[in-house]
Amino acid sequence: MSPSAAMHKKAAALGKLALRMTTRAGSGHPSSALSLAHVVTHLMYHHMRYDPANPWHPAADRLVLSEGHAVPIVYAAYADLGGVIGRDADHARALTEADLDGLRDLDSVLEGHPNPAEGFPFFDAATGSLGQGLSVAAGLALGARLDHSRRRVYVLIGDGEAREGQVWEALDFIVDNKLTNVCAVFNCNMYGQAGEVSQQQSAPRLTAKLEAFGWKATSINGHEPAVIAEAFARVGYSERPVAIVARTVKGWGVEELLQGNWHGKPLPESALPAAEASLDQAAARAGNSAEKLSGPTAPAQTIDTLPHHPDPRSVEWPPFAEAMQAGGLGAAVEKGQLATRQAYGAALKTAGDLLPHVVALDGDVSNSTFTAIFAAAHPERFFECKIAEQNMVSVAAGLSAAGYIPFVNSFAKFLTRAADQVEMANITRANIKLVGSHAGISLGADGPSQMGLLDVAFFQAFSTVLGDDRETPLCRCYHPADAVAAYHCTRLMVAQTGMCYMRTHRPAVPVIYDPDTRFEPGGFNTLETGGNLAIVTAGYMVHVAKEAVEALARKKIRATLIDAYTLPIDALRLGRALQQAGGVALIVEDNYGGGLGAAVAEIAARTGSLRAETLCCQRIPKSARTAEELLNLCGVGCKQIVDHARALLARPGP
Amino acid sequence: MSPSAAMHKKAAALGKLALRMTTRAGSGHPSSALSLAHVVTHLMYHHMRYDPANPWHPAADRLVLSEGHAVPIVYAAYADLGGVIGRDADHARALTEADLDGLRDLDSVLEGHPNPAEGFPFFDAATGSLGQGLSVAAGLALGARLDHSRRRVYVLIGDGEAREGQVWEALDFIVDNKLTNVCAVFNCNMYGQAGEVSQQQSAPRLTAKLEAFGWKATSINGHEPAVIAEAFARVGYSERPVAIVARTVKGWGVEELLQGNWHGKPLPESALPAAEASLDQAAARAGNSAEKLSGPTAPAQTIDTLPHHPDPRSVEWPPFAEAMQAGGLGAAVEKGQLATRQAYGAALKTAGDLLPHVVALDGDVSNSTFTAIFAAAHPERFFECKIAEQNMVSVAAGLSAAGYIPFVNSFAKFLTRAADQVEMANITRANIKLVGSHAGISLGADGPSQMGLLDVAFFQAFSTVLGDDRETPLCRCYHPADAVAAYHCTRLMVAQTGMCYMRTHRPAVPVIYDPDTRFEPGGFNTLETGGNLAIVTAGYMVHVAKEAVEALARKKIRATLIDAYTLPIDALRLGRALQQAGGVALIVEDNYGGGLGAAVAEIAARTGSLRAETLCCQRIPKSARTAEELLNLCGVGCKQIVDHARALLARPGP
Repeated sequence: MSPSAAMHKKAAALGKLALRMTTRAGSGHPSSALSLAHVVTHLMYHHMRYDPANPWHPAADRLVLSEGHAVPIVYAAYADLGGVIGRDADHARALTEADLDGLRDLDSVLEGHPNPAEGFPFFDAATGSLGQGLSVAAGLALGARLDHSRRRVYVLIGDGEAREGQVWEALDFIVDNKLTNVCAVFNCNMYGQAGEVSQQQSAPRLTAKLEAFGWKATSINGHEPAVIAEAFARVGYSERPVAIVARTVKGWGVEELLQGNWHGKPLPESALPAAEASLDQAAARAGNSAEKLSGPTAPAQTIDTLPHHPDPRSVEWPPFAEAMQAGGLGAAVEKGQLATRQAYGAALKTAGDLLPHVVALDGDVSNSTFTAIFAAAHPERFFECKIAEQNMVSVAAGLSAAGYIPFVNSFAKFLTRAADQVEMANITRANIKLVGSHAGISLGADGPSQMGLLDVAFFQAFSTVLGDDRETPLCRCYHPADAVAAYHCTRLMVAQTGMCYMRTHRPAVPVIYDPDTRFEPGGFNTLETGGNLAIVTAGYMVHVAKEAVEALARKKIRATLIDAYTLPIDALRLGRALQQAGGVALIVEDNYGGGLGAAVAEIAARTGSLRAETLCCQRIPKSARTAEELLNLCGVGCKQIVDHARALLARPGP
Repeated sequence: MSPSAAMHKKAAALGKLALRMTTRAGSGHPSSALSLAHVVTHLMYHHMRYDPANPWHPAADRLVLSEGHAVPIVYAAYADLGGVIGRDADHARALTEADLDGLRDLDSVLEGHPNPAEGFPFFDAATGSLGQGLSVAAGLALGARLDHSRRRVYVLIGDGEAREGQVWEALDFIVDNKLTNVCAVFNCNMYGQAGEVSQQQSAPRLTAKLEAFGWKATSINGHEPAVIAEAFARVGYSERPVAIVARTVKGWGVEELLQGNWHGKPLPESALPAAEASLDQAAARAGNSAEKLSGPTAPAQTIDTLPHHPDPRSVEWPPFAEAMQAGGLGAAVEKGQLATRQAYGAALKTAGDLLPHVVALDGDVSNSTFTAIFAAAHPERFFECKIAEQNMVSVAAGLSAAGYIPFVNSFAKFLTRAADQVEMANITRANIKLVGSHAGISLGADGPSQMGLLDVAFFQAFSTVLGDDRETPLCRCYHPADAVAAYHCTRLMVAQTGMCYMRTHRPAVPVIYDPDTRFEPGGFNTLETGGNLAIVTAGYMVHVAKEAVEALARKKIRATLIDAYTLPIDALRLGRALQQAGGVALIVEDNYGGGLGAAVAEIAARTGSLRAETLCCQRIPKSARTAEELLNLCGVGCKQIVDHARALLARPGP
């Protein structure tokens, strides 16, 4: 029997397992799984260099299943190979064929769509929201390069999925960065969920597009073992990254699945025997020998050849002034006026000085986000992602899976463009830090298309969710008011495992904090103390609120001013502080609702004894030449804060 | 003097205006503007068929400036042509050269990045967040086709901008739909903000890519009038849509701008004279005659040849049962069990029956969102957008600008992928309706990659902002609990001008409402009345909360059950209802925080006399075979609601 015959036989056997597990689960995508049967068999039993017994091996080749719904075929192969599952090595055990019947079960690691965070470490990222896998692979490949590792990354992408623009962003990025250790496989089975795939995603059209994008693209029969092997043999031996356009059959080998639209539908139990027989016949046609496939080969390197990253909590940060000086901001600090985005740039460079695995990504705005300071100091760890934010965020998720601590940078407005990529990174529990600059109304002249106005609500929502330890939040948000705060918040982000978001502003503002001020997760700082009411705010608005507090003082109203520089915030401590400040709080924001105001209102409403009201951006901003004009237009200027505070106090409490 | 000489002269004159206005504004992008000087001159003075005195003319050719930062050159031309500005015809006046000095001013319609909503009706959509204009153009072109109009749409896209994946989604969509009335112009000036544009976006590479995507692409010198004219002359006369790759010079004609990186920086006032002289010389080199350009030609049709759309508030909707029957759901209604997504499908079809300008877009999931019901009845008004949600949302913004009422459909999870496109549509004040299905935890087996968990927080944030009338919210959210509610919420969305979001669920649920129940913007329904506490919820969770209310009743706790089917909610009425229900509220959600819970907490916290607490999804969900298992895992199952309600009552109030 030729290896081809063994491959057919194995593909059919895995197909049978995929059929059975989806039928048992009562849902899933057997037809998509079958279209990948041969490609997956070739990769997992022959081509990839990895150890099923140690899926955490950092030098192993990686597989990213971008079309996550096809996952049953990978589960089948992994169980057959005795691959190890578990959240970590302490809870590891081999997956068995019996486990497959638990697909999509509450207690199973076999999620409906791949997710390493639930205990399937063969994968590096949650997929299922389409079009993100190639970017993740690019991040893994960058990590491999930084590691001086020869590992390769294979990505399986659906033809319908190739419509997602992010795929084309990733193709550009991989060529720009010459990541020839990535191989992209397009699975052209010609059917999507609701109907046929567009001719724009046909195998010939995709092949032509890939060539035009600078890839070495080959179109092959995706069920023919010999041509599959030949195509994959080229990976790593080409000047250009290799793309394989595999022409496949949705529901391969199963008569019933070839009729009508079986996307996302399992066969009924009664149809299983005939379907299994159909697959047996398909295998039998290839020959009858009992010869076996070789199985995967070992990773190309041993673990000790790879770099070991220090614990980010173990390093000592230099004093603020020293770090700013080293970042070229000495004069600005001297003057006492600098933007939070500037201080962040110097802080990021410091993080890079201290930790060899801090990396930075930017979307063509490094001279605005001040990641240029990092880039100048650590060019090999700075990745220019150009104007393609979705790819940038998923690349960061890949870098995180490769053990790096990526900082993702753009205007706050443009980071929300990658909202779904951020969510998928969270599902993976990726350790990525997002920093959005030019947030809020204070941007002024450029207008609302450049202002982060939704970002606080968006990331605040993640901060309401608990992480896997059931104690710390899934995501922390930081919103520094000055350069000192920006420096310390960056330090906190580096030390924390998991997603963080920091929001910086365009304008230069006075330094208000002593360099040694304590900043901590969940914390806040009381900048003024008064007994009539509390004004709670963050970021740029701290400076506006300071003026308002002074104006109120002239009217004999004593306000406490709280800089709520992080979310979630310690509810107990904040509740007490508000009580001490008169039990009345005015929350002030330069963004749309659902952010800090919502967070404080929830704390106040829990007590039932605190009054709280939010003053946030009340209309879509427009251009204006000064921040002040716009703050007034949008209802959050100094005078409006004062008026609102007075009205709040004039209104009788309960 | 040849037309070429006149064109050069005009381009230089406009360039001078662009220089001056950005210098006066103290910000802006003169170098980008200059790179487009000839292309814009050709389009606005010669090629486009439109009437500067009536920018609202529905048969006029349209220009979409996707690279919005280059807008000064268009403002310059429009002022020179005496183009009309104003939010509507009642407030119209001609733009003057003197107005240009007001660029980016609070009182000016000349926004830093284009926005028709602030009074510049020559444009159809706010741009400035890159990569969205070609999709908007596709929507305008679909509108033209539905109108049987011969108008054409020109789009100007930056080379760096062409990195955004959405551009490639739009290119596919335009080919799929044979929209040869769209012309895409790529402005290849080779410089982005932070540095050079990638070779992946060079003129030859872009040309090759565009050809591979099925476009007729030509690369030209973008400062050579004769070749520009020749290239544009092909638009509308090709089987394939025409793309023009214009090789241009960033800062054309101005010596100083050709040195270093002048992206986004105006010249200082002192440098203006030399720069203007430099442009004068560039113009003089082409000849010296006083001959003038022809000016734009009139629109290809008169207004009366276009369809007139009825007022969506003027139509009478059939009774619920009749509409469901007509949508093929008679049997399900008979059984009293159907999913909100199903009822929505039939409601959408009804809207299409009643109003000829209701259109629907779907991202390859019409058999899941049930827009298939609409598609079967109104195939010419159904647009299959394939798996490319960003393009879909921006296409809808274009359709809205063309006078249509687009419903945009996908899983709730995948709509948030177009977060920035949704925000840009809001900045435009587009009249689009987004409907996200399979929201929340109840999706179950497919896992978190398919669940809408952030959607409520995201759209709630928009609902905190006021629209231009300063009274109604910018965006309304609907979250129906059953088929009747879904029907009426769809009706409300059609009647309301502006963005709406509706959230539907996968599972079939009992019909709980009388078909004639009143639903209204800001409203809520009290399903049970009790005096101990109120449970406030919406959508699928209404059914879980109903069980919880029964379980509480067995423990002698009488709960009021409020179905908060829409946001924002009438604060005064809700406050009163909560007071009557004992002054204690438990808000229950099957999504992350920042949504309904935040909205109710803000209402409660304003009073200072109501206690409110939110129970929402507390961890990232995973796969499970039943909704119930997952609700329990994520902390929002029936028993957990009961326990939480009891704990809330046991805790002493203020």
